[in-house]
Amino acid sequence: MIIDIHGHYTTAPPELEAYRGSQISQLGTPVKGKLNISDDQIRESIENNQLKLQRERGTDLTIFSPRAASMGHHFGTPLISRYWSETCNELIYRICQLFPKSFIGVCQLPQSPGASPANCVAELERCVTEFGFVGCNLNPDPSGGYWTDPPMTDRYWYPLYEKLVELDVPAMIHVSASCNPNFHATGAHYINGDTTVFMQCIQQPQLFKDFPTLRFVIPHGGGAIPYHWGRYRGMALDMGRGELKDLLLNNIFFDTCVYHQPGIDLLVNVIGADNVLFASEMVGAVRGIDPDTGRYFDDTKPYLDAMPLGDEQRHKIFEGNARRVYPRLGKALAAAA
Amino acid sequence: MIIDIHGHYTTAPPELEAYRGSQISQLGTPVKGKLNISDDQIRESIENNQLKLQRERGTDLTIFSPRAASMGHHFGTPLISRYWSETCNELIYRICQLFPKSFIGVCQLPQSPGASPANCVAELERCVTEFGFVGCNLNPDPSGGYWTDPPMTDRYWYPLYEKLVELDVPAMIHVSASCNPNFHATGAHYINGDTTVFMQCIQQPQLFKDFPTLRFVIPHGGGAIPYHWGRYRGMALDMGRGELKDLLLNNIFFDTCVYHQPGIDLLVNVIGADNVLFASEMVGAVRGIDPDTGRYFDDTKPYLDAMPLGDEQRHKIFEGNARRVYPRLGKALAAAA
Repeated sequence: MIIDIHGHYTTAPPELEAYRGSQISQLGTPVKGKLNISDDQIRESIENNQLKLQRERGTDLTIFSPRAASMGHHFGTPLISRYWSETCNELIYRICQLFPKSFIGVCQLPQSPGASPANCVAELERCVTEFGFVGCNLNPDPSGGYWTDPPMTDRYWYPLYEKLVELDVPAMIHVSASCNPNFHATGAHYINGDTTVFMQCIQQPQLFKDFPTLRFVIPHGGGAIPYHWGRYRGMALDMGRGELKDLLLNNIFFDTCVYHQPGIDLLVNVIGADNVLFASEMVGAVRGIDPDTGRYFDDTKPYLDAMPLGDEQRHKIFEGNARRVYPRLGKALAAAA
Repeated sequence: MIIDIHGHYTTAPPELEAYRGSQISQLGTPVKGKLNISDDQIRESIENNQLKLQRERGTDLTIFSPRAASMGHHFGTPLISRYWSETCNELIYRICQLFPKSFIGVCQLPQSPGASPANCVAELERCVTEFGFVGCNLNPDPSGGYWTDPPMTDRYWYPLYEKLVELDVPAMIHVSASCNPNFHATGAHYINGDTTVFMQCIQQPQLFKDFPTLRFVIPHGGGAIPYHWGRYRGMALDMGRGELKDLLLNNIFFDTCVYHQPGIDLLVNVIGADNVLFASEMVGAVRGIDPDTGRYFDDTKPYLDAMPLGDEQRHKIFEGNARRVYPRLGKALAAAA
């Protein structure tokens, strides 16, 4: 079985953006309202995109969440963010009901700059216990590029971590759009967010002492971390933290959203098969075909297929690690079978 | 000849920090004052550190600049920043006079958040024409982690670029310390800054059309860029910008401050020998010895020595590209010989 752990609903019908647009005029008095998207519209948007590509590329199941760039936690009040998150998560739940063999849900959270992450606990619990979702996306910078909230190792985030641990679901660390003109969203802000949070965890390893079973998935191949593994290993040793692998790799995992062969080679060779989870983030940041290979840049499976991996390593990357990091996934698959 | 293009004076006597400390009480009425460091103090701080390591590691010349984390453009007024930059640059000039065969200067600039980069022109010109410096360090985020100034492709920066082009010196894109608790300076802010500016150049390629001979050196192995080369190549193609190599590699160069073998391998193999300049940033962010190799993490020459490179490639990386990107370097070496 091949599980893609990182897909967003980037192909939603325009009615979803229309719902979002209506929130601009509701900043004073938000109402949740209703999303006008039919099941047929959902089917069409999925069958012609993600499902088609799943089949063409030979993947079986995608861990699926709302579009990351659209989470937009910087916009409006906590109540605006709550209604938007609930609506997006309910839409993902509908997709999972329509295509139960192909998609399993991960939620976005109703974060808002300066608002306690405790506000996210109820929606996380609803999505996991009522919708059968297996994790969440957690934005380390709800300000959208100004980084005004505390580091993710701060006790500020602990109420949410307590619930993640209780529910036994991981968080994918994933920023949203950037409203800072310095940062291109998918080209800078995403990768910077990944790098930043890993470094926070080196600085404050108390986090995983306080929550030994808390698990973070750092997407986009871990940002800059694997490429600079010597730098981070050296810094951790300089700080007296010991080997980075022992310090963080029981709790932090990387996905394979790295869109060329040398990058995937480095990722798997440096980090090792135990901490790498197959993912493509399709349909996402890079939509074209590489003229050198004739394949989509984000078709990450052939890069892994080209590596001289053993069966055990391959199984871990494509399925085993996903079941381990997202334990509710295995339970859901067993229940469905 | 082996030229290390990225060294900072990180081992200055404490009198330098004392000078900086005195500026805190001068925010209202800054005075330039005098730096109380003797030539003997400079000799001792250099001979026991950078010069000792140059000899041990077999490098000949370091392109040397003030400590990057200490530039601190976020602190105080433009006048405070001017006095501090002048003082730091004069100190580098003294080092280059004391050790003319081993060090050649690069200046920091008197940047300040919200202050026009035009303010930096006079100090750049002084350092290049009077001190014989061959380049400058340019901070893309004078705010120190809040990124409040325009992207580096904005016309805001053009007065400085005009002078860089006129003097025919490159800028190393290098942030300073972070005052944002989310960003560890050398572990996140540095790498993020590198990644961010490269992406800005993809978004706004007009910059290098307006200044075809402007050259940026992006340090720390180009941040996350080479590891995610497929992502950036794909994004550039999606945007209709053509091949990334043609778009940016006439103007942007990467150094080799990547502290493990797989990272250096990827850097050189993906980017190619024409755009990679040897550097170590010693004594810098990572000061320890890798227990696996028995060598300093930041001793980057052995990683390159271990690669199966031809003589021409090796010459480019260790010397030729430095002479090409920093043309005043060759003239200075010829004059000294």
